[in-house]
Amino acid sequence: MTYTKSLQGKHLITTQDWEKEELDIILKLAKEMKENRFHHPLNKSLENKSFFMFFYNPSVRTRQSFEIAATELGGHALFLEPKSMRLKTATTAGETIEDAAIVMSRYACGLGIRILEDKIPHYGAGEDLLREYAQYSTIPIVSMAHDKYHPCQGLADIMGIQGHLGELKGKKTLLTWGHGALARSWCSVQEYLLMASRYGMSINLAYPEGYDLDPQVIEQTKKNCDQNSQEFNITNDVKEGYEDVDVVYSRNWMSPQAYKDNKLHNEQEIEKALQFNEWICDTEKMRLTNDALYIHPMPIDRGNEVTDEVASGARSIIYDVAENRLHVQKAVMALTMGEY
Amino acid sequence: MTYTKSLQGKHLITTQDWEKEELDIILKLAKEMKENRFHHPLNKSLENKSFFMFFYNPSVRTRQSFEIAATELGGHALFLEPKSMRLKTATTAGETIEDAAIVMSRYACGLGIRILEDKIPHYGAGEDLLREYAQYSTIPIVSMAHDKYHPCQGLADIMGIQGHLGELKGKKTLLTWGHGALARSWCSVQEYLLMASRYGMSINLAYPEGYDLDPQVIEQTKKNCDQNSQEFNITNDVKEGYEDVDVVYSRNWMSPQAYKDNKLHNEQEIEKALQFNEWICDTEKMRLTNDALYIHPMPIDRGNEVTDEVASGARSIIYDVAENRLHVQKAVMALTMGEY
Amino acid sequence: MTYTKSLQGKHLITTQDWEKEELDIILKLAKEMKENRFHHPLNKSLENKSFFMFFYNPSVRTRQSFEIAATELGGHALFLEPKSMRLKTATTAGETIEDAAIVMSRYACGLGIRILEDKIPHYGAGEDLLREYAQYSTIPIVSMAHDKYHPCQGLADIMGIQGHLGELKGKKTLLTWGHGALARSWCSVQEYLLMASRYGMSINLAYPEGYDLDPQVIEQTKKNCDQNSQEFNITNDVKEGYEDVDVVYSRNWMSPQAYKDNKLHNEQEIEKALQFNEWICDTEKMRLTNDALYIHPMPIDRGNEVTDEVASGARSIIYDVAENRLHVQKAVMALTMGEY
Repeated sequence: MTYTKSLQGKHLITTQDWEKEELDIILKLAKEMKENRFHHPLNKSLENKSFFMFFYNPSVRTRQSFEIAATELGGHALFLEPKSMRLKTATTAGETIEDAAIVMSRYACGLGIRILEDKIPHYGAGEDLLREYAQYSTIPIVSMAHDKYHPCQGLADIMGIQGHLGELKGKKTLLTWGHGALARSWCSVQEYLLMASRYGMSINLAYPEGYDLDPQVIEQTKKNCDQNSQEFNITNDVKEGYEDVDVVYSRNWMSPQAYKDNKLHNEQEIEKALQFNEWICDTEKMRLTNDALYIHPMPIDRGNEVTDEVASGARSIIYDVAENRLHVQKAVMALTMGEY
Repeated sequence: MTYTKSLQGKHLITTQDWEKEELDIILKLAKEMKENRFHHPLNKSLENKSFFMFFYNPSVRTRQSFEIAATELGGHALFLEPKSMRLKTATTAGETIEDAAIVMSRYACGLGIRILEDKIPHYGAGEDLLREYAQYSTIPIVSMAHDKYHPCQGLADIMGIQGHLGELKGKKTLLTWGHGALARSWCSVQEYLLMASRYGMSINLAYPEGYDLDPQVIEQTKKNCDQNSQEFNITNDVKEGYEDVDVVYSRNWMSPQAYKDNKLHNEQEIEKALQFNEWICDTEKMRLTNDALYIHPMPIDRGNEVTDEVASGARSIIYDVAENRLHVQKAVMALTMGEY
Repeated sequence: MTYTKSLQGKHLITTQDWEKEELDIILKLAKEMKENRFHHPLNKSLENKSFFMFFYNPSVRTRQSFEIAATELGGHALFLEPKSMRLKTATTAGETIEDAAIVMSRYACGLGIRILEDKIPHYGAGEDLLREYAQYSTIPIVSMAHDKYHPCQGLADIMGIQGHLGELKGKKTLLTWGHGALARSWCSVQEYLLMASRYGMSINLAYPEGYDLDPQVIEQTKKNCDQNSQEFNITNDVKEGYEDVDVVYSRNWMSPQAYKDNKLHNEQEIEKALQFNEWICDTEKMRLTNDALYIHPMPIDRGNEVTDEVASGARSIIYDVAENRLHVQKAVMALTMGEY
């Protein structure tokens, strides 16, 4: 079997930067790798090669799934934190991103970066940082979640839904805000809007007033839906979005007011998010759907974003989606960074 | 050569949970792996597979020996700490152990957990936590030392003694408390009581008044000794336990009064442990033995638990036992988690 | 092809401990490994073996390059920090270096140690520590930079210069102090003096009054130059050292007054280092040279140690030198620790 070399060297900052056909290649390979986990022909594609995981923010699933993805491809993932990088900042001597990126390109086959809200002065600064690394790096940059996008989560979501529903064109999904003592990033839900709309789903987006997402992402989602002749509805009603959908995704996210004076105001966001306790995905609301699948990128805040009954119910595919993170990342790393 | 698959998927929380014949299989394989370290037929049994090491408490030897065990079997060990896990606690939102264990089971071939006194509210809470992980996990859970047991240390101890004394049935051992600015866990010494008694040794247990160990472990040790028709004596005399024994194990441990008000009172324990400075294993006391071997799980507090003369003497097998940690862990991982 | 086994088991604390012919072997193999990075015959020499990286001080490049070196040789590097080692100190119970070194020798194929100014009470204490490990260890100790020397940086520097200039005998180099908000270690620049003089270069050493280096290293450098019939000049003039040289190395370093009362006075050093702002390597000064190469061990303090124009100019080989760290370390590890 031969595999395309057309993706070699490609950065993955958001799936929207890639052609739909390129995403199809990843999803097809990820499925193959899931079915033939330890004996797939590309399982040596990173043999003795090194992948940098640069965590400006810590992580559970992302670190585990990237480190294991590198391992299962025969390679090794290095765990880097900012404190060990001595980078230049506004107030301290240190290395420029240009120097760091050029040298890392000499050492490794790829560089994953994770940077979230509390490490940046304003929304969009994480995205800018990734694009700055991509400018100087001669190896692929892959987002391991940043303020704006989370491409590997988006791929894992769609892989999970395809695994249960097959072709997604014309299927309906609800993405709904969930309450709780949290102020979660926009990255996962925004990537889901882009991916679901690319793959031909019609979308209901539901949230309480004041929880608008990035207008640019909303605009792009509309375009994607239009190209597939699908609907994109936004509602502030807690129930109506559930009607007749095939997939429900409930998740907390912070409001656009989260940043003030060049920092994140987490506590105010949490206080605000605790007010809307009717915004929980429960069995009663799920009865309005077309026997919908339930998805969530985990970790779940059970009892707030969703009830235990739904999260652990027969239609929940949360563990499949979590597992898919591994497979889609293996596919991305093999085809963008591997030797085969 | 073929190896049994009867141990596949088995948790190892204490050796007492396993049949004696199963422990024999581990010790036999560990010996083979020591003799043929880099070319043993099972050395690819973890190839490209990942093992989680979840350290609620940091560690020296345990982390080194598990990480290297995975490496020498062709696999990879991931280092996890609680701060990176975002687990649910009494006061913060986070992931349940059920969710964490199920997803980790999708990613890796095994999960090691270490949790000691200062991370738990009372003795036994660490044991409960491991058994909760075991309930939800579909991959083997292995204790890397917890409040109650330390199965891999117990296996390494017996492997070391067997290497020098051969068959242990009817041999005599002393386990004696040692003083010093320390308040050490019960896990290693309790596992030793269980293992030495399973392997047919008669046991002298010596400690100053007030340093009783877990009554349930003492009870089980008695039963094990009875089944092998061996004696189990407990004394508060600093010398009499040495008489005529074949193996001496000296080690500090904390008192049953260590926990109060749901926390560990380390400083009071250290203060108390400093009072008994006659409780040191020295050449004079060793003269009472049957030219006994000296063992200790390391790190040693030289000059307190034992003199330099004994610890570095001709009958000390401390380095062999430390090395054995690697070999028994390779054997456990290969047979419970490996593909062969 | 066969490779010498004469270096097996050798410690590398400074290149000055090794014969020139032994260094030649390393540089030749490093060049081979650079040209044939993923398919060199020694690329399996650390297969399934483990290398300890013990970082008393954190690091960027050193950790990346050693960890990747182990990976590319088929092995695994373990990241150790003092907080995880529970070693004995003047005030706390813990393990002796003897015990730690002996057990680590049972587990791994080599031990790298990094210890810099702020972790030691006086200059020379880091060197003493490495030599104490070497005394008890039966596996090779390699310096990953300590207060006095940085052998792998010295090897990478010379490899980089050879790559552009060929034979170095009779070539001229300037090593010049650079200003900035820094108080950098002597290790890299001292190793460079030793290596450049071993390889037959004549040396200009330039720094402001008060920035003398270790007199013992200066003495040794003089001897090395004498043996090769080359000159060694020291000047306090900011410009004259540049005249007619083939290689310029500018770099900040701390003064001999950095230590007082058994600790490092970093802030006073930085204050002092900021005074000499004419001490920057710039295009004007570089015009005095024989179209010299520019080198620096990175990370660079751009705008202080050197201008952007020089650091990113056509004659700068900083990225090549940084990459060479990987190749020389692979060569050292393969020949001192490997199985082939």
